Amino acid sequence: MLSPNIETFLGCDADYTSADLVLFGAPFDSTTSYRPGARFGPSAMRHESFGLETYSPYQDADLTDYAIFDSGDLELCFGSSELALEAIQERAEVILSDGKLPLLMGGEHLVTLGAVRAALNHFPNLHIIHFDAHADLREDYLGVQLSHACVLHRCYDLMGDGRIHQFCIRSGDREEFQFADIHTDMHKFSFDGLEDVLQPLIAADTPVYFTIDLDCLDPSCFPGTGTPEAGGVDFPSLLHAIQQVSRTHVVAADINELAPMLDASGASTALACKVLRELMLALARNRSN
Amino acid sequence: MLSPNIETFLGCDADYTSADLVLFGAPFDSTTSYRPGARFGPSAMRHESFGLETYSPYQDADLTDYAIFDSGDLELCFGSSELALEAIQERAEVILSDGKLPLLMGGEHLVTLGAVRAALNHFPNLHIIHFDAHADLREDYLGVQLSHACVLHRCYDLMGDGRIHQFCIRSGDREEFQFADIHTDMHKFSFDGLEDVLQPLIAADTPVYFTIDLDCLDPSCFPGTGTPEAGGVDFPSLLHAIQQVSRTHVVAADINELAPMLDASGASTALACKVLRELMLALARNRSN
Amino acid sequence: MLSPNIETFLGCDADYTSADLVLFGAPFDSTTSYRPGARFGPSAMRHESFGLETYSPYQDADLTDYAIFDSGDLELCFGSSELALEAIQERAEVILSDGKLPLLMGGEHLVTLGAVRAALNHFPNLHIIHFDAHADLREDYLGVQLSHACVLHRCYDLMGDGRIHQFCIRSGDREEFQFADIHTDMHKFSFDGLEDVLQPLIAADTPVYFTIDLDCLDPSCFPGTGTPEAGGVDFPSLLHAIQQVSRTHVVAADINELAPMLDASGASTALACKVLRELMLALARNRSN
Amino acid sequence: MLSPNIETFLGCDADYTSADLVLFGAPFDSTTSYRPGARFGPSAMRHESFGLETYSPYQDADLTDYAIFDSGDLELCFGSSELALEAIQERAEVILSDGKLPLLMGGEHLVTLGAVRAALNHFPNLHIIHFDAHADLREDYLGVQLSHACVLHRCYDLMGDGRIHQFCIRSGDREEFQFADIHTDMHKFSFDGLEDVLQPLIAADTPVYFTIDLDCLDPSCFPGTGTPEAGGVDFPSLLHAIQQVSRTHVVAADINELAPMLDASGASTALACKVLRELMLALARNRSN
Amino acid sequence: MLSPNIETFLGCDADYTSADLVLFGAPFDSTTSYRPGARFGPSAMRHESFGLETYSPYQDADLTDYAIFDSGDLELCFGSSELALEAIQERAEVILSDGKLPLLMGGEHLVTLGAVRAALNHFPNLHIIHFDAHADLREDYLGVQLSHACVLHRCYDLMGDGRIHQFCIRSGDREEFQFADIHTDMHKFSFDGLEDVLQPLIAADTPVYFTIDLDCLDPSCFPGTGTPEAGGVDFPSLLHAIQQVSRTHVVAADINELAPMLDASGASTALACKVLRELMLALARNRSN
Amino acid sequence: MLSPNIETFLGCDADYTSADLVLFGAPFDSTTSYRPGARFGPSAMRHESFGLETYSPYQDADLTDYAIFDSGDLELCFGSSELALEAIQERAEVILSDGKLPLLMGGEHLVTLGAVRAALNHFPNLHIIHFDAHADLREDYLGVQLSHACVLHRCYDLMGDGRIHQFCIRSGDREEFQFADIHTDMHKFSFDGLEDVLQPLIAADTPVYFTIDLDCLDPSCFPGTGTPEAGGVDFPSLLHAIQQVSRTHVVAADINELAPMLDASGASTALACKVLRELMLALARNRSN
Repeated sequence: MLSPNIETFLGCDADYTSADLVLFGAPFDSTTSYRPGARFGPSAMRHESFGLETYSPYQDADLTDYAIFDSGDLELCFGSSELALEAIQERAEVILSDGKLPLLMGGEHLVTLGAVRAALNHFPNLHIIHFDAHADLREDYLGVQLSHACVLHRCYDLMGDGRIHQFCIRSGDREEFQFADIHTDMHKFSFDGLEDVLQPLIAADTPVYFTIDLDCLDPSCFPGTGTPEAGGVDFPSLLHAIQQVSRTHVVAADINELAPMLDASGASTALACKVLRELMLALARNRSN
Repeated sequence: MLSPNIETFLGCDADYTSADLVLFGAPFDSTTSYRPGARFGPSAMRHESFGLETYSPYQDADLTDYAIFDSGDLELCFGSSELALEAIQERAEVILSDGKLPLLMGGEHLVTLGAVRAALNHFPNLHIIHFDAHADLREDYLGVQLSHACVLHRCYDLMGDGRIHQFCIRSGDREEFQFADIHTDMHKFSFDGLEDVLQPLIAADTPVYFTIDLDCLDPSCFPGTGTPEAGGVDFPSLLHAIQQVSRTHVVAADINELAPMLDASGASTALACKVLRELMLALARNRSN
Repeated sequence: MLSPNIETFLGCDADYTSADLVLFGAPFDSTTSYRPGARFGPSAMRHESFGLETYSPYQDADLTDYAIFDSGDLELCFGSSELALEAIQERAEVILSDGKLPLLMGGEHLVTLGAVRAALNHFPNLHIIHFDAHADLREDYLGVQLSHACVLHRCYDLMGDGRIHQFCIRSGDREEFQFADIHTDMHKFSFDGLEDVLQPLIAADTPVYFTIDLDCLDPSCFPGTGTPEAGGVDFPSLLHAIQQVSRTHVVAADINELAPMLDASGASTALACKVLRELMLALARNRSN
Repeated sequence: MLSPNIETFLGCDADYTSADLVLFGAPFDSTTSYRPGARFGPSAMRHESFGLETYSPYQDADLTDYAIFDSGDLELCFGSSELALEAIQERAEVILSDGKLPLLMGGEHLVTLGAVRAALNHFPNLHIIHFDAHADLREDYLGVQLSHACVLHRCYDLMGDGRIHQFCIRSGDREEFQFADIHTDMHKFSFDGLEDVLQPLIAADTPVYFTIDLDCLDPSCFPGTGTPEAGGVDFPSLLHAIQQVSRTHVVAADINELAPMLDASGASTALACKVLRELMLALARNRSN
Repeated sequence: MLSPNIETFLGCDADYTSADLVLFGAPFDSTTSYRPGARFGPSAMRHESFGLETYSPYQDADLTDYAIFDSGDLELCFGSSELALEAIQERAEVILSDGKLPLLMGGEHLVTLGAVRAALNHFPNLHIIHFDAHADLREDYLGVQLSHACVLHRCYDLMGDGRIHQFCIRSGDREEFQFADIHTDMHKFSFDGLEDVLQPLIAADTPVYFTIDLDCLDPSCFPGTGTPEAGGVDFPSLLHAIQQVSRTHVVAADINELAPMLDASGASTALACKVLRELMLALARNRSN
Repeated sequence: MLSPNIETFLGCDADYTSADLVLFGAPFDSTTSYRPGARFGPSAMRHESFGLETYSPYQDADLTDYAIFDSGDLELCFGSSELALEAIQERAEVILSDGKLPLLMGGEHLVTLGAVRAALNHFPNLHIIHFDAHADLREDYLGVQLSHACVLHRCYDLMGDGRIHQFCIRSGDREEFQFADIHTDMHKFSFDGLEDVLQPLIAADTPVYFTIDLDCLDPSCFPGTGTPEAGGVDFPSLLHAIQQVSRTHVVAADINELAPMLDASGASTALACKVLRELMLALARNRSN
């Protein structure tokens, strides 16, 4: 008897019960102000992951060594950011309640807020490690507070000073950089200072939300994103930083802002798949230690 | 002394006071459920209009014979449909209050609701002539009522039975077609029946809102739209229908759903520009008679 | 508990046992001589089908009224046409043995041969109705007999004279047209003569294999195919012809040669989805009568 | 011993001496005012012609039945229209002097002027049959007289009233249409009136220069051109008109304004190849009668 | 009362009188020998600049701190390089005469010659700092002297030995490199030696024309240009070099050879906008010191 | 008298007899498992090479200084890998028998096997230097042994342990890396260790087959390939490595896996042309020493 067509991210076909990491997608980009298309990120990554291998020569590890489950995409409306965030939070809550690590594929960066809300419910002393080209610290954007351009400010509203650690930032208005000087731990342009940030978090076993806006990468290797910003980091640097952060107590994570239609060569989607593979391997290995 | 860079749609450089038709753009596509990009429609049409001539051999008329003003694009937020609709309504109100015809360039089809609200304030006995591939009659879409997929239902909520005349419709769920059987005047697939609809409107000098979703056209000539639907009308049929409708008392109009990035050949944008030229010529001539 | 990600063609989520029609994909284009890419057809159709509605205003019918099952794509190797054809034949055999209608999504046109072999095993007096721009009647192509350019010749080898009925043909070398004069029932350029062909088949309840090479359509509405041939039929003509053929005793069918990457506007994929919806509705309705 | 790589248009590999038709390309688009790219037309047609067959089911004729020679592209500078026109004229002169028919592949439409100059030297009573969306009758364009937008005016300067017959024209400024009313034989929008124009030319055996701007076609089937103009003719109409014109005494011809990069689907280039095949077959057959 | 649609480069909306820097565009690419499209550079940069912020974290400076005016694009003919150069020279003369710095957006590199002519009239002891992949030192190109491939040779004709300083050069024929050995100050591949060149210019307050062909960048970060040349510099290096050069007495500058249609991802246009922002900030700050 | 259109790679127009290097193309990608298109590599490189100069500032050498012949593309069938490999082997045999160096342009990487077979016939003690992102060491791929994913394993079958030297490898399944640990000389990620490998080969004058899969490059500079793998080497590193390898006794070489349609910017094709120019100059210079 024939089976229905199941489509998961490469190597993420454990059953839910045994899985330690749980993927889900949030195909949402309703507040994107410049060029939309991040809604297509999760399905593109899932579909194109089959151009990859499950084995990583970087970490000498294989997705088939770990139990990872892909729970598919949420069905999100367009036109109501609050409804979308609620659905994301709810899915993350389920996964966290079952003692698993939720791994969210965006979508635009606003989706992070839904998962951070859930993580804060479980881990009130949460810190955020944030890789991004953009500060995302505006108070509002054209009158709207639930916007991708404000998402870290919204997280700050929930968390307060000194718990958001930002890296690779190279774009924002002057007010955002002034806000960061006072309220967040911002590191411009690169990963300089990352190890110093991580040491106390590791020492204290502080719970960490890890959010990767892929536009932290240079557009030369990742043009497929809504707002490409020249001057970013390269792929090996990002891989290395992911392995560093994974040594902390990561309780939830996301990877966002791939807009696959904007890079017709497919190289951006292929890179995003590889980043996700490496992230899952690093997280899974650390949890199994 | 050098002047700043003014960019208007071709031949729309009258001053506002003398103008009889007033263009404005609503670069909004936040509720687009399938493929976004209609936000780029107004600026693409304005920019690419310079591949056209001001003269129409179809109507033997020239944009330079009429006073038309392009008031530019509204600056709309993404993430709040209601705020966007308010801004659209406000601009249309200003133009209507000055006794001019507002001509709105979308954006997704939801923008029509803002302009219809304004027109209803001035013309309570308004009818709508609606060209579209899609019925746009859903009660809600994934829980959201302010959605492109519901826009004619929202207009119906304000206007009631028998005042919405739909043509070229070839897509929708079964409930939408059942709704139309009772509440609207729907003509499927083509312009068949248009003249019969127009005669009483002309006879009674009924005020008409004229909304053109460009996806009424076949994707062969207009692939640059979010949801291309095979089986549409061709360009000469649309031109002819526009000239027919322009004989009624059109008080406001819009043209929407060009997503220029989806047709890299530029043919869709060029066609949209020509449709707008022909629409403006037909409306201007009728108002000057 | 969360479920894995199931991806089927729109409205094809019956369970296998109850289903009457069974979809499957053959992502193969290894012998394509000009521009490859038809391998991506089945997944693109499955993925993009969610831009469609399940309801057809053309047939006033809805996919949800029928039990249809999507069994996913075969995993085919590249580099061995014979192995690929065997896998296709095997899948079609299973479906036919269970008394269901196999509906194959190609891939290049060679995939038809696998399904025809299976259908001939069950229905030795099978006829083929073939819509295509190309005759596909070469004896071999650059020394290879299992080629998309030879596929109807290979079917002919199994079936003999007068049982292959070809429509819309407008390309081939002179020898192919001479072969057709003697051995097949070829109708050039259009569907002229279709009804005359169908009458005796309906009268005798002859089993029919129905193969639709989408390049029978004009490239204006379907540019997304390996070898676009100007001068094809339009979409309404194809819909009408599909409804005509569906009145015969169709025992298996396929739709092939969508190469989605070649039409970045997405209009070709959207059209292919609609053709498949209409084909499934017409076949399902006829079987339920 | 190995041979160098010869690349000709499909089926045009006669030797020069025996050939009756001689192809050459003029990869020039220096005066294109809107979107350039027609310079790539000749090489794209030559390269993509191998997706075609040499046999035409429309005319039941085969390129291999005739002696046609492809003499390659001229090496033209960019930045001097006069130098480019001289090179084109010179090549056409050589071919005409040898009693053969020069068949020029543009390039933008200005290239026609070079070949018309040569043809007028040999046939002072030449008429021009002109298929185009645009009148191309401007006196000058932004101060430049040697421009694609003026090319038929430049021909008129050499030939005078009543000898230029224009078809399918649907774009131009008002002055061009007024000029045409007096000085040329213009037929708007379609081929209506073509047979009436041809009869006296055939009767008098008048020498004819036949110039086909491919943008006479509707952009639905031919988006790959610098200035796509909705409302054009379809492919079967063009094929028919070409066969009609080929019954006159055609002494030189051209086909121009394919800009292949603007239609990434390749359908425009494939269509252009087929038009050229049909034009060559029709011309060759008529000359051999 | 509504205002017309003004479109300027981001943050360049001072009035002309108060402005110290004045932008203008020269949308010209008539002599481009390989792939045209640089004509679309200025409008693309102006349009896409709104994806940027006015604030630079690199220089901790903001466009809103300075008075910069965008005077729009020249309307240039295609087909006469001399007429185009005259228009460019005239605009630059006006700006220089008013004591302001003209900042030209190309277009192809030939446009530089028009602005250099104007600058030489005001500053006879001018030097040129030239960033480019190509030497642009040919005596003529296919018989044409006013060509992008010859533009620095034309400047040399006006200026003589030792006053042109070239960096990043990695393409040219052997004769150009031999010419450079004698007549210009060429630095191959990178910015090595830049500081040594600048010191005496700064010391003597020598007036400098600064011309940036964006193809000096590696195609990995800037593929959107007519002739991409592997092996270029990266974005941070270019930013640094721009800040270095801005310490000299720059009297006029240009940035050219963005061909936006060649990079559909938009990353090249976004980068060009950021380079222009950084260039304007560096020049404005230095002039205000 | 006019000549036919000869198209060769830039500067490769020696006659065969005098030539020392002989180019040929194998436009084959039938076993490509992910994204096909490498079949278009050789013609794209030949065509686009005219955007390059013959002179290299890197090596201060010029293609016109050496006798190189381009023998065009093989006409390969699709659907039979063995027939294709035979044709490749045969062409390489002819060239080797005449004492010349065959330089093969792929096509997918499987084509290498044909040329290696020929080279082994002439040089039984052959070693292979292999630059690639992928190990290509699978025993079979979905049941097929003649696959691009297995090509180095097929070479190994002919050559045995220790004679294949691999660089830049960063993708493969775990079994391939385990196989390499035992049977090949694999260097992951970069060219580290290259000089150490080359010294004994140079000392012993060992005959070398040099195969360059262009996807060894990072997708930032070379996205136009079927399976882009982030984390590759940059262009200057590749140029340097090519010059290093060329000091060995290279008896045959290839360059493969450019899929030009996947990078619409053209930067990948331009880079491939430059790599081929530099490879030819390095090989030619070494043979003439």
